[in-house]
Amino acid sequence: MIKNLNIVIAGLGTVGSSTIKLIESNKNIFLNRSGLRVNIVGVFAKNKSKTRNFRLKNYKWFNSYKDMIRQKNVNIVIELIGGAKGIARDICYETLKNKKNLITANKALLAHDGYKLAKLAEENKVKIGFEASVAGGVPVISTLKKSFKGIKINKITGILNGTSNYILTNMLEENNDFSTSLKKAQKLGYAEQNPEDDLNGLDTLHKIIILSEISFNKQIDIKKAVCSGIEKLTKEDIFFANKLGFRIKLLGIGCIEKKKIKLIVSPFLISKEKELSNVNKNLNAIIIDANKKNKTILVGEGAGGDPTSISVISDLINISSYENENMYGITYKDLKRVSISNNFSGDNSYFIRVKTYDKPGAIAAITTILKNFNISIKSLFQEQLNRKIFNVVILSHKCKKSSIDKAANKLNKCNFVKEKAIIMQVLHV
Amino acid sequence: MIKNLNIVIAGLGTVGSSTIKLIESNKNIFLNRSGLRVNIVGVFAKNKSKTRNFRLKNYKWFNSYKDMIRQKNVNIVIELIGGAKGIARDICYETLKNKKNLITANKALLAHDGYKLAKLAEENKVKIGFEASVAGGVPVISTLKKSFKGIKINKITGILNGTSNYILTNMLEENNDFSTSLKKAQKLGYAEQNPEDDLNGLDTLHKIIILSEISFNKQIDIKKAVCSGIEKLTKEDIFFANKLGFRIKLLGIGCIEKKKIKLIVSPFLISKEKELSNVNKNLNAIIIDANKKNKTILVGEGAGGDPTSISVISDLINISSYENENMYGITYKDLKRVSISNNFSGDNSYFIRVKTYDKPGAIAAITTILKNFNISIKSLFQEQLNRKIFNVVILSHKCKKSSIDKAANKLNKCNFVKEKAIIMQVLHV
Repeated sequence: MIKNLNIVIAGLGTVGSSTIKLIESNKNIFLNRSGLRVNIVGVFAKNKSKTRNFRLKNYKWFNSYKDMIRQKNVNIVIELIGGAKGIARDICYETLKNKKNLITANKALLAHDGYKLAKLAEENKVKIGFEASVAGGVPVISTLKKSFKGIKINKITGILNGTSNYILTNMLEENNDFSTSLKKAQKLGYAEQNPEDDLNGLDTLHKIIILSEISFNKQIDIKKAVCSGIEKLTKEDIFFANKLGFRIKLLGIGCIEKKKIKLIVSPFLISKEKELSNVNKNLNAIIIDANKKNKTILVGEGAGGDPTSISVISDLINISSYENENMYGITYKDLKRVSISNNFSGDNSYFIRVKTYDKPGAIAAITTILKNFNISIKSLFQEQLNRKIFNVVILSHKCKKSSIDKAANKLNKCNFVKEKAIIMQVLHV
Repeated sequence: MIKNLNIVIAGLGTVGSSTIKLIESNKNIFLNRSGLRVNIVGVFAKNKSKTRNFRLKNYKWFNSYKDMIRQKNVNIVIELIGGAKGIARDICYETLKNKKNLITANKALLAHDGYKLAKLAEENKVKIGFEASVAGGVPVISTLKKSFKGIKINKITGILNGTSNYILTNMLEENNDFSTSLKKAQKLGYAEQNPEDDLNGLDTLHKIIILSEISFNKQIDIKKAVCSGIEKLTKEDIFFANKLGFRIKLLGIGCIEKKKIKLIVSPFLISKEKELSNVNKNLNAIIIDANKKNKTILVGEGAGGDPTSISVISDLINISSYENENMYGITYKDLKRVSISNNFSGDNSYFIRVKTYDKPGAIAAITTILKNFNISIKSLFQEQLNRKIFNVVILSHKCKKSSIDKAANKLNKCNFVKEKAIIMQVLHV
């Protein structure tokens, strides 16, 4: 029995264009494997006259997204504009209110409004597919919702931002400084012209919130979360980390500890022996820690039109095939509010880099401060940058985060310290 | 609305015991997230009196698996005995004929009888869950069936045998010879007492057949497939591969080329820069190549009770929640028969190790043979094993497989060659 699936697409940028091309080329696969005849009955974007790499004329153009959504025969609206506010948000709400299924890649909106959207979808008996919102072509959302539905998930750890990961890899491989690597990422299409939210960790925060909400079945209030990104890292950090046997990766981690959600988004040092250390360039990876000690790792391209459109297609097929699929796997009524913290328990090793003026006694002063906060030193390097300035790099033994915070505070006040110390945690998993 | 799910379990070994314990500990999760009240209404195994790490007395024991399956209220039969023939096979057929859903980890049976089972299940309107049959806790089957249902899959590459992977890793890390590493694997529970099918590649063949059948929607006749394993590798192979910048991994590869299924199961050299090279010990990994150049990698523990029971639970939940789930994603009627071959197109680099008697002119003879078959040499090592015997190791530039086969044939006939040459392909992906 063949089922007609009428879809409309809002947003015709990289992902939108790839999605249209993939739908056109895969029509026979949809028909043969799923009995679906997929028709694109309309498109909408902010700018009609922009040059696009598909034939816009083949599709009905809507000047009003409201008219497009309200077309009687539309089953699914695909929103690929993005943004927690503005038109993308309006389209998502309008879609659900009009009792249409929604597919979206809008991680910012989902991180802010996930609960509201889940409620609205359930009330209107429609579904939301959002596989494309996290880790491009990696089917992590479906894996969490389906394969781990009967299993307790303890922790989610992810390299979730392709831009940051590309820059960190490129700085090491080509010995570039941050701005050169960023420019290269932009040239290759791995970074946007305004990459601020990628580099400051916000994009990773959005994604780890989405994954944590599915994994732990909680409502997470993004306003109470904090994050830091890679924008202050220099090639010295990459270089010294490498010398110490580590790679630097921007990680998002979510876990459940004593009924609280712990969230952290920050660059970490990862031993070269660990799986995540080899996840390079624009790749994303997610480790799912479940049921005591079980680890499952998913790796794939995290962004770009081709991989992301695969996830859009996956949602398209699944929304049409399965019943009773709530957004977070369970009803929104059971998504409990929970307080969040970024205080992970347990001690950690830390990487500390201090840029100092060449002043007698500087090293002695630094090591004394660490000693006073019970931080013992595993390795110490000193490197002269020019006649007046040098870097001191320290790898600590395991110690309390509170000790490190206090020591950093003290260090940053020393008159021989040129810039705020760079401090990164070593990943112990 | 709460749904009762009555299950019976046949097979109470490592996976069976772990499954029972996981079901008991996760009853609240099933109830809260899926509205399922799961009851174990009976168990069966070959030997009742064996010591087990759960309280057998808590469950109704059946002396006859037929009686157990035919209990009126049973919804799902879980078969965890294993084996393409004998009692495990009988239980699977009996389950489907009695219109009960089946969950099984029986890769040997699935590789031989997959099509017949799919037909029988559809005819009786019941479902088969087999996530546990490939790569233990890694949800590769669900990923292929659900996330890639609308996408053309081009190739599946997998490290699918935990025993072989553990031995290959251990030989390198601890400089052990094959038999010492095997014993260690057995001691740790990563290898069975009779590991023949793990080491000769047959287990990997079963698994790559299952994955290929789902990915390419074809019936594959296992009788026409060939495989080779790791049983002839020595620590010299590991050592020289490492020296050349490679790891050795036993891979199963399935792809579709010119409407033929190409299957290969063999040890490969993998550059240390590639993702799979870091998949060590008893880990499994699968690369899904789809839609032109998209790569998705799944990594996790490949065997053992805890990870495998997670996959059994995943099937339990999914069988109870989703409708219209055919075994291979599509109806058995559309699973076309296809001829298979292990002739992959394209040239490759090869690793060649020849153990020779110390005879003047041996190296000259070897290199002349290679030259005569147009095989050019990238690296060559010679290592004296004792006064009379040495190893010659060659890494070739890319060349035809037929040339390598002919050269090997010639080499093996030389009177100075002590043992058949070891030949492995370098993975170029």
